Amino acid sequence: MAHQPIITLTTDFGSSDHFVGVMKGVILSINPQASIVDISHQIQPYDLLDGALTIAQAYPYFPPASIHVVVVDPGVGSERRPILVSSDKHYFVAPDNGVLSVVLDREPGATVRHITSEHYFLSPVSNTFHGRDVFAPVAAYLSKGVDTSRFGEIVTECVRVPLPRAQRVGEKEIKGVILKVDNFGNCLTNITPEDVPELFASSPPPFRLVTGQKEINKLFLSYAAGPVDEPFAILGSSGYLELATNRAHAAQLLGARRGTELSIFLE
Amino acid sequence: MAHQPIITLTTDFGSSDHFVGVMKGVILSINPQASIVDISHQIQPYDLLDGALTIAQAYPYFPPASIHVVVVDPGVGSERRPILVSSDKHYFVAPDNGVLSVVLDREPGATVRHITSEHYFLSPVSNTFHGRDVFAPVAAYLSKGVDTSRFGEIVTECVRVPLPRAQRVGEKEIKGVILKVDNFGNCLTNITPEDVPELFASSPPPFRLVTGQKEINKLFLSYAAGPVDEPFAILGSSGYLELATNRAHAAQLLGARRGTELSIFLE
Amino acid sequence: MAHQPIITLTTDFGSSDHFVGVMKGVILSINPQASIVDISHQIQPYDLLDGALTIAQAYPYFPPASIHVVVVDPGVGSERRPILVSSDKHYFVAPDNGVLSVVLDREPGATVRHITSEHYFLSPVSNTFHGRDVFAPVAAYLSKGVDTSRFGEIVTECVRVPLPRAQRVGEKEIKGVILKVDNFGNCLTNITPEDVPELFASSPPPFRLVTGQKEINKLFLSYAAGPVDEPFAILGSSGYLELATNRAHAAQLLGARRGTELSIFLE
Repeated sequence: MAHQPIITLTTDFGSSDHFVGVMKGVILSINPQASIVDISHQIQPYDLLDGALTIAQAYPYFPPASIHVVVVDPGVGSERRPILVSSDKHYFVAPDNGVLSVVLDREPGATVRHITSEHYFLSPVSNTFHGRDVFAPVAAYLSKGVDTSRFGEIVTECVRVPLPRAQRVGEKEIKGVILKVDNFGNCLTNITPEDVPELFASSPPPFRLVTGQKEINKLFLSYAAGPVDEPFAILGSSGYLELATNRAHAAQLLGARRGTELSIFLE
Repeated sequence: MAHQPIITLTTDFGSSDHFVGVMKGVILSINPQASIVDISHQIQPYDLLDGALTIAQAYPYFPPASIHVVVVDPGVGSERRPILVSSDKHYFVAPDNGVLSVVLDREPGATVRHITSEHYFLSPVSNTFHGRDVFAPVAAYLSKGVDTSRFGEIVTECVRVPLPRAQRVGEKEIKGVILKVDNFGNCLTNITPEDVPELFASSPPPFRLVTGQKEINKLFLSYAAGPVDEPFAILGSSGYLELATNRAHAAQLLGARRGTELSIFLE
Repeated sequence: MAHQPIITLTTDFGSSDHFVGVMKGVILSINPQASIVDISHQIQPYDLLDGALTIAQAYPYFPPASIHVVVVDPGVGSERRPILVSSDKHYFVAPDNGVLSVVLDREPGATVRHITSEHYFLSPVSNTFHGRDVFAPVAAYLSKGVDTSRFGEIVTECVRVPLPRAQRVGEKEIKGVILKVDNFGNCLTNITPEDVPELFASSPPPFRLVTGQKEINKLFLSYAAGPVDEPFAILGSSGYLELATNRAHAAQLLGARRGTELSIFLE
């Protein structure tokens, strides 16, 4: 490879322990040329959906041949398999527990391998830290040009934990759920323009978006266009409808959090 | 350039979302040689002063030709302009909302350009994430050697949100304000040795520093020289007077926070 | 050196200030080839034991000739010395306050030098930020190949703050303490298999592990093998006995934190 190979890291390890530093040390010990990029280490502990969403929102922006390591791994040390996923442009190394579900939805032609070649692992392999002992070294050897076929056989089944889908109820109601609250308090929902094309048409109908005791009936095109003290709807940068505010914390104003349900009623 | 060009990032994006990782992916997709350095992603959300102070305290320590991307951008998607600032030694890419005010104070000869060359942007440009769509790609092309003149015309006016200045009241009183509380609880004020040269003279006069119900009347040269349980004044490493303690949390002891006012009375 | 020299950073600076970014700028200004890796900046403020444990758990995974900068430095600006420690494979730059104690336990042949060559420091040296003015520039010059002997004389004594050791009380009781609670709520103790070989034998005896009002009497080999709602013991990835759960927060369930004592009674 002409340039430094890129390895990204997405984990629920937080930033107060040695875990992430250790993974970087392992990678650089195997491949000193690797360029390591943190996507996030603040995935909610054990939260596969949060991990699945985060890597899916980030990976398309990385160069071809990037290697994405995703470690949200409550089953570490059990029978769950480590997998290597190869799409047209990207590689993913992760436990086979659903954390790549959203990636696999978007990369239907991807190949999934069960990583079994233990000579690429650290030895001995612990039962509690496969980020260090399995996923980091596999990514490092992959970044050195080891062919994917060397890591294990192709498998046709893997664990999928799909995102909850927005549901159309009759002609006028769409039910959804909040997938994530971001750093600004914006609430990312699972509703996309495909689910409610009316709302994104050139002359959208009036609507009521109801969540808990609160109601939203305005959609704005930018945060700054909306009122400061009142939540509104907006199409977010990842293509999901968001409940947002202009410089306040929408989740707090709405009493909403991950998992909170909502309905849009078109009029 | 002989070495890897440096791009620093200062944002209010936090570390629990995909935002920062995406910016890095965009930069590396355009310039795989770029060396990306995080300054902070924990700027208080929407807080232009916090962003302005942080970048101003950090940039002088970076090598010549470093490119500093600063994204605290409550007006994203509105009419506020993206700007490119070039000083003798550094480049800055940011929204034109005052977040570069302290930098511009320190770099009076800097040139400011309104970034208008949309062919350097990601396409389409969203209304909600210009860190990804505008600022990261502009910085990446700049790091590849694209001349600043290619990004847009020089403008003579830009938004300035100056730091509040310490005020001398009569001969014996100086009024100031706390600009920031740091990770250790030290309170950075807007008072510099220029504002109160007496205090930093070889034999300083007695003084009373009053904030809220609390009073400080000692100045120490190092944290370790001061008492553990009692806040004192100290000249901090960025050249501002700080209210600090020796191993305790001064802001909590003083009941002080960003924006808290103080007065120094010389005797 | 054929590859980019590695400089790791472990500090209590947090991530909301400019401190870490400034250290990186200083390093890159002196050695643009340096590859800087964050281990953690969330060491508890002033907590030498937390810093000592974190660097000791991380450094062995880095390549030979890595330079580890550790700045937990409540005595900055006082008489405490800056030191440079060289072991067979690694270098460490830190204040002489005990923060390298666990490293020195594991590297008994290491050489310790008192760093006195001020021409490698930033000038002037502040009294409050030696991470910027002393430790970062020394590490950067070292990474450029400056010989260790150039930084100062070998000293035979340095400050040691050893980890509290587990104590055997009679034949059947082992007393220990919780050293750290990790991001998942797992409680790292100071008890190793050497302290209680019985517990890790092929057929371990029944035991009671008592901490506060709580009692644990099961040991599992992986987190996933244990019950979800009940803390258990496990051998952690750094070689210490941990109090853990399967997907819950052991420290909260146990009412335990750093410094909490525990006893193991073998039966």
